[in-house]
Formats: sequence, C-alpha cells, structure tokens
Amino acid sequence: MANTDSVRVRVFSLNCWGIRYLSKHCPQRYAMIGDMLSKEEHDLVLLQEVWSEKDYLSLKKKLCCSHPHSHYFKSGVIGSGLAIFSKHRIHDTFLYRYSLNGYPYMAHHGDWFGGKAVGMAVINIGKLTANVYVTHLHAEYCRDKDSYLPHRVVQAWELQQFIRHTSAGADVVILGGDLNMHPQDLGNRLLRAYTGLRDSYVETAKFDGCEDGITLIADNPFISKKELVPFENGIRIDYILFKGSSKLDIHCDSMSTTKGSVPNHPFPYSDHEALTSELRLDPHAPAETGSDGQSKDQECAAGKGAELVDILTEARTEVKVGLHCAESMRYTATRTGVMGLALLILELAIAAVPWLALGAEQPFPRTSFYLLAALCFAILLTTFLLYIFYTMELKSLQGAEDQMRLAIGSLQEKLRGFPLAQPHNAQRKPPEGEEPSAFDPEE
Amino acid sequence: MANTDSVRVRVFSLNCWGIRYLSKHCPQRYAMIGDMLSKEEHDLVLLQEVWSEKDYLSLKKKLCCSHPHSHYFKSGVIGSGLAIFSKHRIHDTFLYRYSLNGYPYMAHHGDWFGGKAVGMAVINIGKLTANVYVTHLHAEYCRDKDSYLPHRVVQAWELQQFIRHTSAGADVVILGGDLNMHPQDLGNRLLRAYTGLRDSYVETAKFDGCEDGITLIADNPFISKKELVPFENGIRIDYILFKGSSKLDIHCDSMSTTKGSVPNHPFPYSDHEALTSELRLDPHAPAETGSDGQSKDQECAAGKGAELVDILTEARTEVKVGLHCAESMRYTATRTGVMGLALLILELAIAAVPWLALGAEQPFPRTSFYLLAALCFAILLTTFLLYIFYTMELKSLQGAEDQMRLAIGSLQEKLRGFPLAQPHNAQRKPPEGEEPSAFDPEE
Repeated sequence: MANTDSVRVRVFSLNCWGIRYLSKHCPQRYAMIGDMLSKEEHDLVLLQEVWSEKDYLSLKKKLCCSHPHSHYFKSGVIGSGLAIFSKHRIHDTFLYRYSLNGYPYMAHHGDWFGGKAVGMAVINIGKLTANVYVTHLHAEYCRDKDSYLPHRVVQAWELQQFIRHTSAGADVVILGGDLNMHPQDLGNRLLRAYTGLRDSYVETAKFDGCEDGITLIADNPFISKKELVPFENGIRIDYILFKGSSKLDIHCDSMSTTKGSVPNHPFPYSDHEALTSELRLDPHAPAETGSDGQSKDQECAAGKGAELVDILTEARTEVKVGLHCAESMRYTATRTGVMGLALLILELAIAAVPWLALGAEQPFPRTSFYLLAALCFAILLTTFLLYIFYTMELKSLQGAEDQMRLAIGSLQEKLRGFPLAQPHNAQRKPPEGEEPSAFDPEE
Repeated sequence: MANTDSVRVRVFSLNCWGIRYLSKHCPQRYAMIGDMLSKEEHDLVLLQEVWSEKDYLSLKKKLCCSHPHSHYFKSGVIGSGLAIFSKHRIHDTFLYRYSLNGYPYMAHHGDWFGGKAVGMAVINIGKLTANVYVTHLHAEYCRDKDSYLPHRVVQAWELQQFIRHTSAGADVVILGGDLNMHPQDLGNRLLRAYTGLRDSYVETAKFDGCEDGITLIADNPFISKKELVPFENGIRIDYILFKGSSKLDIHCDSMSTTKGSVPNHPFPYSDHEALTSELRLDPHAPAETGSDGQSKDQECAAGKGAELVDILTEARTEVKVGLHCAESMRYTATRTGVMGLALLILELAIAAVPWLALGAEQPFPRTSFYLLAALCFAILLTTFLLYIFYTMELKSLQGAEDQMRLAIGSLQEKLRGFPLAQPHNAQRKPPEGEEPSAFDPEE
C-alpha cells in the first residue's frame, strides 16, 4: 500500500528508430512522439536512436513546457542516439562509452558509428536523488550465429559496472533502454544479478501491453517478419529496470507498452514499442543493519554469490570465445599484410631485373605494374588498420576477462565467509548451485 | 594526533617510463623498482607507463609476497600502462577510457596508442572501503603552444566526473598518477575543486624530497634540460591526492620523493621521481548533518560554487578553443578530400578524351596517369579517415561542453540558494568571486 510520503514517478522509454532519410516516416513519427510526450507528461523520458541532434532539438522545443530539462549524449561518429527529457532538474550527467561496439567495416550494420554508450543523469525528485540511466546495446543481427555476442556481453558487463559503481549515493536507480537482449540472455542475467535491478514487466502489479511484454512485435509494419524468426510473435528487448536503496522502497504499480498501432495515426511511433512504468517510491528510515547503499549491495552480493559466480563463468567463457575470434582475425590480417608485402617485394625485384641487366626488356606491362603496386599498398594499409583495430579489441576483451576473473575470485572469497547463500536475499531466482564453483579464479 | 583506531596507509606512485627497447636501461630499472617495492612494502603501489604486460607480470612475480594483489589495466593499442599492486585484497576494478587522447597520426608522441584511462580498484583496508584510482593524462609537449590542452582539460573533466560519481560509497579516496599538469593548471584546479581531493604535497606535515615537490627534475640523467625550459629546476606533474568521507578523517603525516639518484645504482628508477605518502585514516561516527558522502559532497559543492563556476567557465572556454580547432581541421580534411576528388574526375575526363574522339592521341604519359590516380585515391582515403576521426573528436568535445554548461547551470541554481559561500567549506582557496558569475548557462 502507498503511504503518504510516497512519490510517484512515471518513466517512459522508446527506441525512436530515428535515422534521417532512411527510417520510414521519420519526421511524422517524431511529431507523433512529441505530441504524445507533451500530452502524457511523464516524469522521465528515456529515448534511444535519436540519431540526429536536429531531431533532439525540435523535440526539446516541443517539450519545453512539459519537460523543461533535457540532455543529449554525444559520442562516436553519428552520436550515441541517447536523450533524456525530465520534468525534474538534471543536476549532473556522465557518459560511459562501451569499449567494444562492433566493427567499423560492418558499415551496413552501423553500430560502430553510433558510439554506443550508457548515459547517466543525476536528477532530484523532491528530496530524493535519482540516478537515471539510458542505454542502447549492440544489435543482434543473427541469433544463431551472433558474431557480436562477445561485444554485447562486454557491454552488459561494463553497463553493470558503471551502474553499480556510480549509484552508491543514489536513493533510486532507474535504467531504461533497448538492451538488444532477451530476458534470459546472458548479458541480461549478468546485469540484473550484479546490480540488483528489477524488471518492471516482471514486477508490475498491473500490465497492459503486448503478450509476454514483447517490444519488437510481428504486427509492427516497420518490421520484417523474417528478422523475428523463430520468435513468431516477437521478442522483448526493451526494458525499464529499477531499484531502491536502504533509504527507499520501490514498487512498480503499473506498466504498459504500445501495441503497434496508434489511434488516429496510420503507423506506430517506431519499429519498437514504447514502454511506460509507474513507479512508487516509499522513503523510509535507513535500515539499521546496512549503514549505506553499498554495504547493503555487498550483503546482497554475498547472498547471490553462487548464482553470480555461475553467470560470470558463463560470461567469461563468452568473452574467451570473442578473444579467440579477435586473435584469429588479427592473425589473418597479419598474414594478409605479410603476403601483400611479399608480393610488393617480388614485383619490385622483377621490375629491377632490367635495371640491373641493362638492355634486358621490361618483363612487366607498365599498366599491370602500377595496378599491382597499388593493390599491394592498399592491402598493406588495410591490414595495418585492421591490425590496430583488432589489437584494441583484444585489449578490451582481455581487460573485461581480467576483471571478471578478479570478480569471481572476490565472490568466492565472500562465499567462503557465507557458506550458504542467504535465502532472503535470493528473491528473484533460486541459486543454481549452492556450492562455490570449482572454477579457479587464477586461471 | 593519531587516535587508537587510526589506520596508516603508505601509498607509492611512479611513472615507470617502461617502453621496451626504447626507454634507457628499462630491464635494469624494473629490477631496481621491483627490489625497492618488495623491500618497502607500501600498502598501495600505483604505477604508470608499464607499457608491457610482460614487465607487469615479472613485477607481479617479484612482489607476490609483499603485494599479493594486483591489477593491470588494458586499453588502447599498447595498453593503458596502468598497474596497481596492493597488500590488501582488490575486490573490484573498473576502467574508464578518456574519450579524447591525442591523434593517431601523431605517432611520434604515441599517446593515442596508449589508450589513456583512469583505473579504479575497490580495496578493503581493514573495515574501510578505499577507492583507489591511478591515471596518466596526455603529455604536454610544448607549454607555449600546447595543441593538446583541450584534450587534457577534457580528460581532467572526465577524471573528476569518474571519481566523483564512483566514490560515493567509499570511506576513503586515493588518486595517484602522472597528471601531466602543473599544480595550478586549469585541469588540476578543476579536478581538486570538483572532487574535494587534497594534494599530499600541500597537506603533508613532513616533506622530504626535491625543492617545491618537483617530480620531473633537471638533474635526472634521462631528461633533456631543453624540455624543461623555462622551468630550470623542474616541474611538479605527479601527484598523490586523497580525501576522506563523512565517516573518516584523513591526514598526510609525511611525504617524500626520490631525488634523482638511487644509492648504489648508476641511474634513477625512471625519468620521473617516485612519490610516497603516508596517510593516516581516522574513522569517526558519521556526521549528523551529512547522512552520506554524497550529501556532504553536495554541501561542499554549494560552498565552493562560485569558485567552481569560474574554473568551469575557463574550462569551457578551453574546450571551445578545441572545438574551433577540430572544426577547422575537419574543414581542411573535407576541402582536401574534395580537391582530391576533383583532381581524379579531371584526370579521368582528360583520359576519356581520346576514347571519345577516337584516334586522338592519349595526352597523358601512362606512368603519370597511374601515379596521379593513386595519389588521388590516397588523398580520398586519408581525408575520409581524418573526417571520421575529427567528427568523433568534435562529438566528444561538444559532449564535454554540454556537460560543463549543465554543471554551471546547476551550480548557479545552488548558488542562488546559498548567497554566500560557506567559509568553513572554502578551506583550500578563497573563492575568487562571491557573486554568481554573469555567465549564461543556456548559451
């Protein structure tokens, strides 16, 4: 039951699919989104894929009365696409760019150019400090053979690190965005288990929306049904997650999603469905046992330790797969570069013969000579750039793996102090194994 | 005076100048550093420029008894060069890569390839949680005409953001590293004023080291005296900074630096001097007024508001200079690319003449034709890559400027609530102006 001190916060999240000139009906959809937002007056509006700053600025103009405070997060070549609109003052913002985000040469996928990141805004809602996060992870283009999985897992890892480390002073934590992960995907479990964030769709007392809370639905006219196979109805990849603190309980009273069509309009807001959560914040006196948010976090972490060790081990395996791929790609680039160099040297050697033995005829037609030389240089340059890129990818993957190994070691240390996971902390899921994993943190 | 609950922490920081095969006497110096560290047994050892993981691993082996816990932060092409060794268990680590870090084509400066970052380790010292940070900012190659200044200011801005947002749950915050900034440089003032970090050299009760605490000294045989002009004796660019929390007071009982030479060795540890600070942590009951670290931070921020607004305005101006440079560089790249394209089209047009008017003689010598075409393609590719790079630089600079503008607005809002800066908070420096700046946060 709501008490008199309760604060209600309505949170909205939408992936706007706002690629100028490429996304269908982009200006019309932005107009619809703007109208709806200024009418609905959510407390917090978390938008993704607002790729053009012009679109952000026109939304800002439209929402100047309903949402006087806003921030647009800039990153990458195109931008991060992330924007926050708020009824309450934004005091501070911070952006964390994920270290891995696809490949620049996969230009048709475009993720690399987007500079994917997680944006944070510190917002005071009454006397409460809310840390509000908005993010958009790397897309999944093929579920069966998802070459971006290690990148997405590392993004989820960095996302949980960022939230966990930056939210110790917050009374309430809210994350909205397109995670590009199904509810039980590795990265999602990692994020929820580590941060303690709870899923609006799972927690809500009242739900109105598509079946199973799906946010990428087959009925959406902007979606090709082929992309959804084998999930005929659609998938749930957009989320509003939240957690309270030792000073505050948080509940989701209701949650809703759009269902494809929009009344009186010929098409929906976006290719994704929009999410709205009504959160109720109940402040209370700080608990006696935990003097601050972090020590409570630590307790939870110990309780969920065994589950976390399993998830982390799985994540580490996935990162190792990525490491293996990156190493083999770098090896291929190196080998191709060496072959290009050998070809260039061979060509120069053959061309040098007539110079050395004066009078001998030039064996090369001049055209072929120059074309071959240009090809060799192109190979050398490309493989050099790829080598640099894969080395950076390797460093990031190795860095994440090192951090995961350290975290596993630290969790196992704690588990030895808490031989049984505290059942009252393991609310969301029972630990899969109570015993500490036999995994060796030092290897 | 120390009370009985006092905890003493000895912190060491050194830029190791560890470029394999390039830095002079690198293996011998690492051996000296390892010997000294295992003998001295500092609680925390913060190293920079450990560019090779092999060197880190050999140090780790050597220090396995004195410092059983360590972490090496990986980033960029070569690495971040950052390493932490600790007597106390490292529970968690996190790395923030600066969004700007020089230019890849300035390969002789090498900073871009290093992937400069700030590494964080959460370490439990007894019952206290210490957030320990190690960082290394972009070098200053020419003080009079420092083209990297906007990058370094943005790095300092991101460093203060990272520390401020991640340290709310910590009892003590320690930062060590080579900031590549003089004590009163803009970035340094920004960092100290915003985070409340205090400088060991300024705060120490007892100091033993070089005059003025300089850490890059003219007497060091690895340093060319020319680089130090006009600072004949040397400069202070390495720091150990610290702050406590509402639960803990912190004092620097003594501080020392090496003075170039090392007894019984023909050369010093590095081209930088090593720093050692002895910190005393005095836990006390949480203050009544501030219920946690963050609210205390907020109070301090309000007190120092006017000073901060001035520093921020200065930083924003510097970032705008950077924006202007990046824009003009991108414009130059675009113009050069367009010229390359025009040249290519012109060449093709001229070459097409004999094709169209059959029988007319080819006006081009074939060699020149191919060389010119290759040149055009090289120009197009290079300018394209530069365009992408400068666009990313612009986005990061704009992002930092947006955040600074927001911060100024938020500070001015607070200042209106606190018409006079609280004198007890303005311990370190008197505010330069008590009145809120006339600066308009919205422009």
